[in-house]
Amino acid sequence: MKTGYFITVEGGEGAGKTSAIEAIVSTVEELGYETISTREPGGIPIAEQIRAVVLDTKNTAMDKRTEALLYAAARRQHLTEKVIPALQSGKVVVCDRFIDSSLAYQGHARGLGVDEVLAVNRFAIGDWMPDLTLFLDVSPEVGLGRIRADWSREVNRLDLEEMRFHELVREGYREVLRRYPERVRRIDAEQTPDKVAEQIRQIVNQTLRNRV
Amino acid sequence: MKTGYFITVEGGEGAGKTSAIEAIVSTVEELGYETISTREPGGIPIAEQIRAVVLDTKNTAMDKRTEALLYAAARRQHLTEKVIPALQSGKVVVCDRFIDSSLAYQGHARGLGVDEVLAVNRFAIGDWMPDLTLFLDVSPEVGLGRIRADWSREVNRLDLEEMRFHELVREGYREVLRRYPERVRRIDAEQTPDKVAEQIRQIVNQTLRNRV
Repeated sequence: MKTGYFITVEGGEGAGKTSAIEAIVSTVEELGYETISTREPGGIPIAEQIRAVVLDTKNTAMDKRTEALLYAAARRQHLTEKVIPALQSGKVVVCDRFIDSSLAYQGHARGLGVDEVLAVNRFAIGDWMPDLTLFLDVSPEVGLGRIRADWSREVNRLDLEEMRFHELVREGYREVLRRYPERVRRIDAEQTPDKVAEQIRQIVNQTLRNRV
Repeated sequence: MKTGYFITVEGGEGAGKTSAIEAIVSTVEELGYETISTREPGGIPIAEQIRAVVLDTKNTAMDKRTEALLYAAARRQHLTEKVIPALQSGKVVVCDRFIDSSLAYQGHARGLGVDEVLAVNRFAIGDWMPDLTLFLDVSPEVGLGRIRADWSREVNRLDLEEMRFHELVREGYREVLRRYPERVRRIDAEQTPDKVAEQIRQIVNQTLRNRV
């Protein structure tokens, strides 16, 4: 029994996900729906414990596949304890990053393979794929420039490596967009904040109204 | 570059895995191979941390899929840090339980689905499937009778439930045997310990000699 609506927000660093979530939540509330916004591990103790293993700075020996499995495990627990109950009570759930982050970051950018990471995440998610995903598309130059006050200084070798990594993440998201054209909507996140918010409001309005 | 040989031992409670491993290790050593025996999490800190999350008695809300993903994550880390290096240095590795335990317990007995649990574990294992698996087949009555001094007392409802669960585990292992007839060798573990050990020695001798 699935009565709510599940929206996820995706994109690289500095894409503007926080502002996007605010725009989604206010639009959804204006339409009269109850809504919660969340992000993994979302205060779920088991998911927090798993995330702590991933982030433990002592764990330098962690294999990339171990890490992907741990992200999927934390995702599953957050989903079952927080997202599914909210959806089943009819709420709109807005989640900051979900399966597509794993596909773009671990699957494509870190080279584990999009199909491989998808298989693990389909096990974690079961039938609970998002109903709608907003992909905030921004170039690494613009995205990283927004989150770094000192980006205007001379760019060094490590900056270039980071830039290349974020270019791979962007490619990964574009692959996600190709695979799920009905679920994922691309938004040009290099527009002004007002324009981005307006476009988000339009999409959310349209989608939720058409749903009935 | 894979030069060693990877043997796993599987079976329900009281099947005699510990004695089986002793028989394998001594046979392998007589053939002149270096060998290590291990079991997950095997002293690997990251795998131990993951296992601690699984076993934490406070984590009663843990979902079955979360648990299966965590087992797979601990498996991956133990594999990369302990099993693969030993195999690459030419050793014979004997592992007490591996992928087939997940297929039999989580996949079949707990009802997650053998194909589903296999997909997650293939991601965890990559190309490192066992070369040879000894499945010690024992009925729940005999197996549980061996590990419980008080099994002769009157059997209650919980005992019957436990018996049914172990019957499902046994069915799960038989499914594994059907899927991997070349890799998995069934051993009748209700025979006397001497006969079981003799059969194990024969199989290991034959397999390792034929390998060259």
